[in-house]
Amino acid sequence: MPEAVPVPSREADVRLAPEGGFPLEGGARLPHVVQRVTMYGAPRADGANVVLVPHALTGSGRVGEWWPGVVGPGALLDTERLCVIGINCLGGCYGSTGPASHAEDGRPYGSRFPVLTVRDIVRAQRAALAELGVHRVGAVVGGSLGGMQALAWGVEFPDDVAIVAAIGASAALTPLSIGISSTARAAIANDPNFNGGDYYDGEPPARGLDLARRLGMLTYKSEELLQQRFGRRGDRRGADPAAGLWERFDVEGYLAHQGEIFVRRIDANTHLALSKAMELFDLDRDYGSVETAAARLRARVVLVGIGGDWLFPSAQVRETWRRLRLAGADAVYLELASDHGHDAFLAEPEALTRLLAPVLAPLYTQEARVAATALG
Amino acid sequence: MPEAVPVPSREADVRLAPEGGFPLEGGARLPHVVQRVTMYGAPRADGANVVLVPHALTGSGRVGEWWPGVVGPGALLDTERLCVIGINCLGGCYGSTGPASHAEDGRPYGSRFPVLTVRDIVRAQRAALAELGVHRVGAVVGGSLGGMQALAWGVEFPDDVAIVAAIGASAALTPLSIGISSTARAAIANDPNFNGGDYYDGEPPARGLDLARRLGMLTYKSEELLQQRFGRRGDRRGADPAAGLWERFDVEGYLAHQGEIFVRRIDANTHLALSKAMELFDLDRDYGSVETAAARLRARVVLVGIGGDWLFPSAQVRETWRRLRLAGADAVYLELASDHGHDAFLAEPEALTRLLAPVLAPLYTQEARVAATALG
Repeated sequence: MPEAVPVPSREADVRLAPEGGFPLEGGARLPHVVQRVTMYGAPRADGANVVLVPHALTGSGRVGEWWPGVVGPGALLDTERLCVIGINCLGGCYGSTGPASHAEDGRPYGSRFPVLTVRDIVRAQRAALAELGVHRVGAVVGGSLGGMQALAWGVEFPDDVAIVAAIGASAALTPLSIGISSTARAAIANDPNFNGGDYYDGEPPARGLDLARRLGMLTYKSEELLQQRFGRRGDRRGADPAAGLWERFDVEGYLAHQGEIFVRRIDANTHLALSKAMELFDLDRDYGSVETAAARLRARVVLVGIGGDWLFPSAQVRETWRRLRLAGADAVYLELASDHGHDAFLAEPEALTRLLAPVLAPLYTQEARVAATALG
Repeated sequence: MPEAVPVPSREADVRLAPEGGFPLEGGARLPHVVQRVTMYGAPRADGANVVLVPHALTGSGRVGEWWPGVVGPGALLDTERLCVIGINCLGGCYGSTGPASHAEDGRPYGSRFPVLTVRDIVRAQRAALAELGVHRVGAVVGGSLGGMQALAWGVEFPDDVAIVAAIGASAALTPLSIGISSTARAAIANDPNFNGGDYYDGEPPARGLDLARRLGMLTYKSEELLQQRFGRRGDRRGADPAAGLWERFDVEGYLAHQGEIFVRRIDANTHLALSKAMELFDLDRDYGSVETAAARLRARVVLVGIGGDWLFPSAQVRETWRRLRLAGADAVYLELASDHGHDAFLAEPEALTRLLAPVLAPLYTQEARVAATALG
């Protein structure tokens, strides 16, 4: 049954231009930062009805568009009863300041865009929400890179969020995932059109970005799903894969198609910036240890591991939960059983709803307001 | 303890030029085919002391060089007691006919080199051995693509081999592995130097090949090994990975190094041809079904699954064994417990020796001769 795509009630470009520029964790400063904020519903003064939904590597602030079945009228995050907010990440290409934005000299940042961290991304979000009068949120709910942001919200702004739900995300990427992510970045850099990142006057590095997307897609799906969906069948639109070096299996045709549509909607430099932020995210490194991070947390934390996820193996998610718990955090671990792999957070809205509805129930009750007030 | 690298007792370029050319499964014919054969020891007339060791994607016929601890004096495949033979694959770049070889017009094949299958590869091997007077072998022992060749030997030439040992190889690649392999091939094709495969007059597509190798390396190692070896440490020769978009984690530096040394020793077209052969190998497709293939087998078949191998998941290897058994083949399944992942067949010579020595014992006994004779 197709779900209604909710219409944003408000979309605002919030300009943050603090004295001396917007400071980044790596030491650089951006003269100003735009955050494109998309709101579904109106925030209450105490923020208890607000759910911030940070996006994953390739998303946007239009959360109602990319998370159907989870965000919408009557859904887990009910846009008719809550205020659901999406913000395009700093570094993004859907309205917020990113590498394609113009620097002070009127030229795109390109190669001059500084390295970002997840902490930078959530700090920009927090500042933008404050500009809009939202000083506290009932929950931050995200998957993958969005889950990392949810965790970072809980640790960075312990007084400002009541519930943190991170799906398919752990305290840090594994070396295998860093290897894949960095190889995808190298594929972009290898494209002759890349020109070190300064390609906005010419053709974009579409072939490199295509390869990066194919790699990404492979990490988002489980072996089981690929087996069910593609098996060893030949490409549905091509010849027998044995007929030529470039005749394809179905899975290969699928990946090529995914690459093709991806390059039309994502800026390669955004892909680099956000992949790098994902690789760098590390509660141990960022806060000294997961335990130190956990000691800052005041929110209830829900970690959802996904069976068959090999980008963020569920064992790693469980291990993050274990460490948070040992350090005294109010953390629960839930497992989403799915054949989808990492993508299950997008592909299994019903299962995710069953899993998270009890945890998010306080958003819909008086208790939420009380809890949020108590945090203050 | 470093093992002695055995010195080949003979190395021969066998030229196969059957009337009308050497036929390939896809229908093409090569006017002639050279097979570079490396021998350690002398074959007995009945062939019972001969072990053929087909190589994996990036190997050569010099099996004593790339399989130390498994092939050598006193090793599992004892070059002082057996006759161990390696043959560079058809399509290879270590002496046998491949895409860089000259066609009839005196120019390299390049893009004109036909699609190869594992069956083509083993047929060329069989013909070359016959030219050298070797009509039967005691065993074919190989890992990965070499294991596929071992299986194909057993099925194609049931009367000519007594023991087939395939390590980290199953009846066919999974769709995930096809996806990775084909993405690696796409990375080569994307390199502007590739020129459709006709690059022998210019610079080779080194950057594409580098990416392909990085991807390959990621599939050869297990999560556990990468965790132990690299964790999330920064590059040992570089700055903090957070210091710049291209500053690296240790695992990234390792992959880049592997890519760098690889491009000096492998021809990109060989990589394409042999990867494609690996993707195409499929006992079901090639013989109608695994069961039909199994019915042809007269050799004892040993399948070795590797724990933590995600290129050839051990569950798939076990499933191949189960199907062979059900069809009545004399097949055993053994599991190599290792943190290495797919590479364990190279990295764990001692464990592999413990596992396979009992199975290969007949090679060293009179019984082997008897068994081989009985096959005839």
